[in-house]
Amino acid sequence: MTFNIETSAKQARIAARQVAQLNTNEKNQLLLKIASSIENNSDAILKANNKDIDAGKAKGLSESMLDRLLLTPQRIADIAHAIKEIIALADPIGEVANLILRPNGLQVGKMRIPLGVIAMIYEARPNVTAESAALCIKSGNAVILRGGSEAIHSNLALAECLHQVIKDQGLDPNMVTVIPDTSREVIEKLLKQRESIDLVIPRGGEGLIRYVTEHSQIPVIQHFKGVCHLFIDKYADLDKAINILVNGKTQRPSACNSLETLLVHQSFADKFLPLAAKALLPKQVKVHACQQSINYFDNAILATNDDYHAEYLNQEIAIKVVESFDAAINHINEFTSDHTEVIVSQDTSRTQAFIKQINSSVVMVNASSRFSDGGQLGLGSEIGISTSKLHAYGPMGLSSLTTEKFVVYGDGQVRD
Amino acid sequence: MTFNIETSAKQARIAARQVAQLNTNEKNQLLLKIASSIENNSDAILKANNKDIDAGKAKGLSESMLDRLLLTPQRIADIAHAIKEIIALADPIGEVANLILRPNGLQVGKMRIPLGVIAMIYEARPNVTAESAALCIKSGNAVILRGGSEAIHSNLALAECLHQVIKDQGLDPNMVTVIPDTSREVIEKLLKQRESIDLVIPRGGEGLIRYVTEHSQIPVIQHFKGVCHLFIDKYADLDKAINILVNGKTQRPSACNSLETLLVHQSFADKFLPLAAKALLPKQVKVHACQQSINYFDNAILATNDDYHAEYLNQEIAIKVVESFDAAINHINEFTSDHTEVIVSQDTSRTQAFIKQINSSVVMVNASSRFSDGGQLGLGSEIGISTSKLHAYGPMGLSSLTTEKFVVYGDGQVRD
Repeated sequence: MTFNIETSAKQARIAARQVAQLNTNEKNQLLLKIASSIENNSDAILKANNKDIDAGKAKGLSESMLDRLLLTPQRIADIAHAIKEIIALADPIGEVANLILRPNGLQVGKMRIPLGVIAMIYEARPNVTAESAALCIKSGNAVILRGGSEAIHSNLALAECLHQVIKDQGLDPNMVTVIPDTSREVIEKLLKQRESIDLVIPRGGEGLIRYVTEHSQIPVIQHFKGVCHLFIDKYADLDKAINILVNGKTQRPSACNSLETLLVHQSFADKFLPLAAKALLPKQVKVHACQQSINYFDNAILATNDDYHAEYLNQEIAIKVVESFDAAINHINEFTSDHTEVIVSQDTSRTQAFIKQINSSVVMVNASSRFSDGGQLGLGSEIGISTSKLHAYGPMGLSSLTTEKFVVYGDGQVRD
Repeated sequence: MTFNIETSAKQARIAARQVAQLNTNEKNQLLLKIASSIENNSDAILKANNKDIDAGKAKGLSESMLDRLLLTPQRIADIAHAIKEIIALADPIGEVANLILRPNGLQVGKMRIPLGVIAMIYEARPNVTAESAALCIKSGNAVILRGGSEAIHSNLALAECLHQVIKDQGLDPNMVTVIPDTSREVIEKLLKQRESIDLVIPRGGEGLIRYVTEHSQIPVIQHFKGVCHLFIDKYADLDKAINILVNGKTQRPSACNSLETLLVHQSFADKFLPLAAKALLPKQVKVHACQQSINYFDNAILATNDDYHAEYLNQEIAIKVVESFDAAINHINEFTSDHTEVIVSQDTSRTQAFIKQINSSVVMVNASSRFSDGGQLGLGSEIGISTSKLHAYGPMGLSSLTTEKFVVYGDGQVRD
């Protein structure tokens, strides 16, 4: 049977009505059964994953790619655990934030509802398949999943599991679609199904996101990259400044909320940079420094404009001394990726000005950029981070997969 | 000097930073001066408008098109008045809805900020130029305006006025751009400026909106059409039902929130339809009725499937008798334009079920669909109605031109 994305998307739209009507208990029961089924079927899933691993080795995938692809009994237990954490999240659907009374007696409120059908396009890790499906179901949405070709057998085995449970509950299995077609053409067609699909979320490299943005007729949540800045103001507390720098750069450099550029106020450079150099040394951080800061570091390289645009994602940092607060703001506004920017300062006028003048999705005062994460900011499970301003901006929780409709209660009112 | 949209969009992005930093007083002062300047320059504006009217007559525009295009001293006073109403609106920018405290002592909130650069693409009426500019300035955004070619002289005269005031205040005139190029190519190029423009709002016919949706790499707020349904349940109050029908269909049939389809529960048809026929008769409403309802009306025509899709926008209605509550829900879900749907019923279980099962942007109980409007629902001035679910859904007020960033206040916290 050949796969047709247009037909599948229409079936997903129909199934979306059903999942939107499930109440919290029904959704949680369904998710609990899905979690158990994944654990109970781990043999079949591991067998399918083995095929992907073999194919990956034959294709010459790197060790780190193969590791991302690999499932183990422990990793399957982790997937089930992640689904149970999603069960524990508050259900955003049905909430009416406030109901205002109009002068003519109409009551007007906004009720949170699912978006409808969400398409996710992503790369290697098979756990994303199960967890994305769970997040969409919990928020009352149908989902269409298009994982990477490397993980296709694992993804289809997980889909098999989910579909069995959904059917056993007497529900429409089209609420979760795993696309079996791994060609790029299927993505191009998917991106035109605007009558059936409400939102596309691409997760992966910049190339994938750019491709989806340029070809989609459906709204896209974008996360291009995280070039996070740390500005050490002249009124910074020295200890906090060092800790926030080291934590932001080195605690997990592959994460998008890690620091990439350090800006230091010139009046504080003499005090701060020698300690910064000492603190970064044992972590073997490669430094790209400006003319004014290069001599504080052993083996530093002169920074180019490209360095200030770079998302290194490893033990590497760009450093610049700025002559003033305004120069720091201007630098950030020029090079921002709209992800996360941090100021370290004890002066509240300056921290308030920083918050006002920087409109990145997360603006922080005296805290590590590594907190820029849905879980850390209190959103529960994280769906991703949006660096485009429409619909969602910054770390996204479940409510980013919803919208609000107006509800109006009258008693026969008509308009004059 | 030839107009280059890429350059203009980049200049608008730079100006956007400035307008985002203006406080409420500064924005209101600027708008007040703009309102005065438009009134003071009414001679020049009327003269420019005269050119448009002459060109429109030569082109053979219809009387109603010419009327929409026409400016008079009174209409110019109305524009100034509309700007003063925008001044009176609350400034959404800077508001932090709630600041939660995380277990590690971080305070996390979301602050409302402007989107940045908004592009509006619209047709005839020149008042949209001034009012859209005012709404964008009030919400801290820069704006790029592309009006219809018919109104180009009027639009440029208004732009002249605005630019003079903005420059007199020492501000960057690029915060408002009126595109002098009336070709379609300029729209195509505009829709690719995703590095500079954050949102596109097309206002006009379905063709324009479809064109923009299909060609845009920038998020689009869509309003395709309003096929609003009224469902008269078997437990409806007869008087309310008649009033809501007559008001919804005939009070201003050209508005998108007017009724287009009436659904009547079969157990109530005998009671309701004779009165409905009597009430619609003096308004000369043309009726497209189903087999079961056609005999209640003089001169009714048998409704086709197309009638249930139709947005008549005049004294014309499609009518269908449904056998059950569920049949009404299914009909609406099949034919909905996601605009506004109304139930008339005294039974709260059924009104609650209607609210739950219909996810149009506005769902009403016992009230006229004509209330589906930003002003009527308490949003202040209306920017439009979105019938797509992303970012904004339903009538949009000023806050639809904004987004939220996370603000995080720490005291040196780092991540474990």
